Amino acid sequence: MPSTHLTFADRASHRAWLAAQSALPAGFRVGSAQFDFTPAEVRKPARMTLTLIALDRPTADFAAVFTRNAFPGAPVLVGRARLDGPSLGAILINNKISNVCAPGGVAAAERICEETARLLGFSQGEILPGSTGVIGWSLPVNGILGALPSAVRSLAGGSVLPAAEGIVTTDLYPKVRRAAVGAGSIVGIAKGAGMIEPNMATMLVYLLTDLSVPRRELRRMLSAAVGPTFNSISVDSDTSTSDTVALVSSGGVPCPDAADFERALHTVCADLAEDVVRNGEGVRHVIRVSVVNAPDASSARALGKTVVNAPLLKCAVAGNDPNVGRLVQAVGKHVGSRAPGTDLSGLRMALGGVEIFSGGEFRLDPEKEAALSRHMRGAELYASAPPKGGVYRPPVDFPAHERCVEIEIDLGRRGRASAVVLGADLTHEYVSENADYRS
Amino acid sequence: MPSTHLTFADRASHRAWLAAQSALPAGFRVGSAQFDFTPAEVRKPARMTLTLIALDRPTADFAAVFTRNAFPGAPVLVGRARLDGPSLGAILINNKISNVCAPGGVAAAERICEETARLLGFSQGEILPGSTGVIGWSLPVNGILGALPSAVRSLAGGSVLPAAEGIVTTDLYPKVRRAAVGAGSIVGIAKGAGMIEPNMATMLVYLLTDLSVPRRELRRMLSAAVGPTFNSISVDSDTSTSDTVALVSSGGVPCPDAADFERALHTVCADLAEDVVRNGEGVRHVIRVSVVNAPDASSARALGKTVVNAPLLKCAVAGNDPNVGRLVQAVGKHVGSRAPGTDLSGLRMALGGVEIFSGGEFRLDPEKEAALSRHMRGAELYASAPPKGGVYRPPVDFPAHERCVEIEIDLGRRGRASAVVLGADLTHEYVSENADYRS
Repeated sequence: MPSTHLTFADRASHRAWLAAQSALPAGFRVGSAQFDFTPAEVRKPARMTLTLIALDRPTADFAAVFTRNAFPGAPVLVGRARLDGPSLGAILINNKISNVCAPGGVAAAERICEETARLLGFSQGEILPGSTGVIGWSLPVNGILGALPSAVRSLAGGSVLPAAEGIVTTDLYPKVRRAAVGAGSIVGIAKGAGMIEPNMATMLVYLLTDLSVPRRELRRMLSAAVGPTFNSISVDSDTSTSDTVALVSSGGVPCPDAADFERALHTVCADLAEDVVRNGEGVRHVIRVSVVNAPDASSARALGKTVVNAPLLKCAVAGNDPNVGRLVQAVGKHVGSRAPGTDLSGLRMALGGVEIFSGGEFRLDPEKEAALSRHMRGAELYASAPPKGGVYRPPVDFPAHERCVEIEIDLGRRGRASAVVLGADLTHEYVSENADYRS
Repeated sequence: MPSTHLTFADRASHRAWLAAQSALPAGFRVGSAQFDFTPAEVRKPARMTLTLIALDRPTADFAAVFTRNAFPGAPVLVGRARLDGPSLGAILINNKISNVCAPGGVAAAERICEETARLLGFSQGEILPGSTGVIGWSLPVNGILGALPSAVRSLAGGSVLPAAEGIVTTDLYPKVRRAAVGAGSIVGIAKGAGMIEPNMATMLVYLLTDLSVPRRELRRMLSAAVGPTFNSISVDSDTSTSDTVALVSSGGVPCPDAADFERALHTVCADLAEDVVRNGEGVRHVIRVSVVNAPDASSARALGKTVVNAPLLKCAVAGNDPNVGRLVQAVGKHVGSRAPGTDLSGLRMALGGVEIFSGGEFRLDPEKEAALSRHMRGAELYASAPPKGGVYRPPVDFPAHERCVEIEIDLGRRGRASAVVLGADLTHEYVSENADYRS
């Protein structure tokens, strides 16, 4: 899945690499603004950041996919309607409150779009809203309307980094990936499963390109790209009510080859998806599960997701503990509930390239145990820092490397389908992020 | 689901209550033995406990249900075969190693049954084996054979407590429940989701009765009882390869009424199931989800399980944080993936009796936030003790009370089906139990 195997010695080298990724495609400008407010539902002051991504002129060529949660946020409801509109001119994202099932939530989102459009000289239906944060609270509409002129004034071309930084919340670092196609590029930013003070992890991804690709093609390509990328990752199995991946073309650069563009799009999506996991809440190990020789890709992906979501396996990985019994448990749980009676006699499993199971039996000895443990330690992103006041916080704000705990599951059946799924360990940092604040 | 609402002021009062529960039905004796060994797969010494439950004479009247994991342990494979045999005379349980997919695992289990039978004067097919512990390792057969005579010598009637204590591992306390029917009783013991140094949580439950109920009826009743009890709980969504619930009648006491017996069986199962959750790994809050007005019981139970297994909601409960957005997220995740398009307009949700969602919108304000938080604090079993050496350990070894975080989900549809599911929070104690040792 990954197109790179980067390592970073320190924060500065990571930031330098990010800056080099961030050249904004022609036809886009980004800006942001902040303001303080008090939510109606709790009496505690908060600060909200608005991030604005504006096109020089509205485009007909845009695409988006949204969460499948049955309680989508108001921005998702509005965004789905925008797909039917003739053109898109800007994207406005706020953090802190996700505007999900809040009384009057759609009207609030539309009022904010209306004002954004007025300030930019676009029409209301050309603004795509995005929100991430606490589920259930109401947007501070007046505060947002008051801060919008400042966000518009700050719009500038050159770098997407201000937007990548504006949409992150407690993510440890901004996430930017790019790919060049001919004279143009695709640049994507993602807000991942870093939590908001701390709340629902929401994945928001915005992919910007100056390459001219018609709307119909953009939508087909985006739909095809999300399956093996953003739909093949899981930090904790929860599904945000706000997940959004949008792709917008400003269209100034002729696209030399549609297949090249689609490959570049896939690469940017795959890299950002891995970035989202690698910077997921409390993640200290990324786990990559490759399922091969499966009857079909969707069952391969489902098995991979069960494995990366198995809490006991995730805890073992957190502890660099090669407790591979928990891996077999997860496979058996999945098959036993989804496809009982499946012939598993040809199943082979390996961890870090070391075979641990075949022919229905474990293949373990003390030497393998040591090799497995070394592999897991090598994939650790950082060692836990001692908790302060009972709260664990990651001691780093850059990814040291792009190594993974590598799990291979060969179903050994006639099928030739495969899938790669990325997940993460379950750590004290995750629990601290999600249990130790706010109460 | 629960038949009791007990509170215990201290360990001594809990132990006194346990002792009163533990009178062994006529026709059974229990015993145990311990020995030291070194697993073949790692070079680290360990101590194994054998627990023996023996009938005075073999009975035809026994029943058992087993895990649905596609990699069942050797004792499960052997146990399934025992169901076809004419009679059962004893149950032998070991901890530390679960004998799952280990080379020669079934032969090892049968060899141990053979020797147990020889010592008791029974036949090999009359011994039901049970194992819990590390998945993938091989049983120390010679060590077990050497310790068996000591276990047989220790057999005694009077109290089931030695067996309840013998099968627990890192459970905080033994679990015993009883119900009287006429002149007889059903007494059940459970080894729950306390971990073994720390490994796969395995639920082993043994239900002993002196009431005479024919095999066919026992099996029907046990199958009916496990659905709303042991199959309606989840500590962490993982499915053991060894789960076993066995019911054995020594048959010395006439059963006055089959319906009374079945009700008593259900009560013992429900109480033990709740005990297993309440003493689950790192559990600081039990969460009870009642789903009502659902189209059918199985979909109601599936929704309840998704809710109690949602990591972000579990973390919020751990923190006494009434972050009810995470509850709505979980319901929406389930419906969006299992039954997209379901009409949720009539959905009502309450936490601790306080309505938090209806008519498609949240109903929140600062007063409710405070009431929700009070409810969660009232259901907390204990406050976290500061970690020592980075490891969180529960500071108590008895259940202070039987209160739960109460979640009600009224689907508001024409269906009249319902389900109650028990789950637990996700805590630092859970992560410590499963990530902080062994590596």
